[in-house]
Amino acid sequence: MATVTPARGARQPQQERSRATRRRLLEAAISCLADHGWSGSTVSVVAERAGVSRGAAQHHFRTREDLFTAAVEHVAEMRQRAVQAVADNLPPPGSRARTRIIVEELVGLYTGPLFRAALHLWVAAGDEAQLRERVTALEARVGREAHRTAVALLAADETVPGVRETVQGLLDMARGLGLANLLTDDSARRERVVSQWSRILDGVLNPVTG
Amino acid sequence: MATVTPARGARQPQQERSRATRRRLLEAAISCLADHGWSGSTVSVVAERAGVSRGAAQHHFRTREDLFTAAVEHVAEMRQRAVQAVADNLPPPGSRARTRIIVEELVGLYTGPLFRAALHLWVAAGDEAQLRERVTALEARVGREAHRTAVALLAADETVPGVRETVQGLLDMARGLGLANLLTDDSARRERVVSQWSRILDGVLNPVTG
Repeated sequence: MATVTPARGARQPQQERSRATRRRLLEAAISCLADHGWSGSTVSVVAERAGVSRGAAQHHFRTREDLFTAAVEHVAEMRQRAVQAVADNLPPPGSRARTRIIVEELVGLYTGPLFRAALHLWVAAGDEAQLRERVTALEARVGREAHRTAVALLAADETVPGVRETVQGLLDMARGLGLANLLTDDSARRERVVSQWSRILDGVLNPVTG
Repeated sequence: MATVTPARGARQPQQERSRATRRRLLEAAISCLADHGWSGSTVSVVAERAGVSRGAAQHHFRTREDLFTAAVEHVAEMRQRAVQAVADNLPPPGSRARTRIIVEELVGLYTGPLFRAALHLWVAAGDEAQLRERVTALEARVGREAHRTAVALLAADETVPGVRETVQGLLDMARGLGLANLLTDDSARRERVVSQWSRILDGVLNPVTG
């Protein structure tokens, strides 16, 4: 074992450095996409923004498509984990206050730089066959995960007819609110819509307490 | 009057031809934007698609921004008028079937080539200050008009607290459904969401009959 230990010791920091580089690249890719769109986002631009050499960037991501789809997936996962973490500090199930906080959190998934970046990727994918397939699969995965998070947080019983579609419509509304926030700060109007639809949703999902 | 009549007669067909040329340009601009995005959509490309000389195109629209914002506004107006026309053949007010048809029509505003074109313009406007101001104003006008149409068709009483936000959230959902339809045919899922949310909306707006 003595001969293995130094090698493992040396490899570990290197693996950590490699992971840190990868994370820097992914985060730079998102802000680059949000700021400059797909046409202005190349591996070189992202590498420079991340303070990483082009060669190192290409060691991590072979193609531009690899880098940007990985970036959207990584940041979406982090955002969803943050929303899931909110679950620990929620008011009791079935209360209106709980529903309101959950809807706010779900809508929050679609109103930041991540959504702006993902939107650039979606729109570009509409024109580029190569990107389209990747983004379609990515969008399906991220969408499924958002749905699972919403169902868990809302404690929605999907065996009840209509509940699945109620949650889906809520996530569609969240995406639409993200779109409305693209060019202007829509937060004041959004807050009122979220408040009203939380009330409606609470009445539908928790008819006794709602 | 006899000296005026021939001149008016000559001018009228010319005005009609001019209007027809303008309409051809606007429609070509929408399909061009939907197919090739903002970066691939220039006045020349649109003129060629419309079978109009570049000079004639520039006689109608001085700048690229003029052409594309006018195009989205024109087609949005036509679509909204088509939705309003549906009102003549609706089941009686307050019925669930009526609400369902109206929601379908409103969602239809956001799921065709017009929405795809508008989305390209929005995303491009996020990166270009000159375009941004124009598109923000356009988006506000088109959004207001869609809201007015929705309120009228649903016979929604906006003096009742929450009704305005209920209708707004519905239109946000419609936009989100448009987004979900961007890369794949989402019509089967959309139909289920529309059906469920029509039921919810009907219960909120028409609590007695719903």
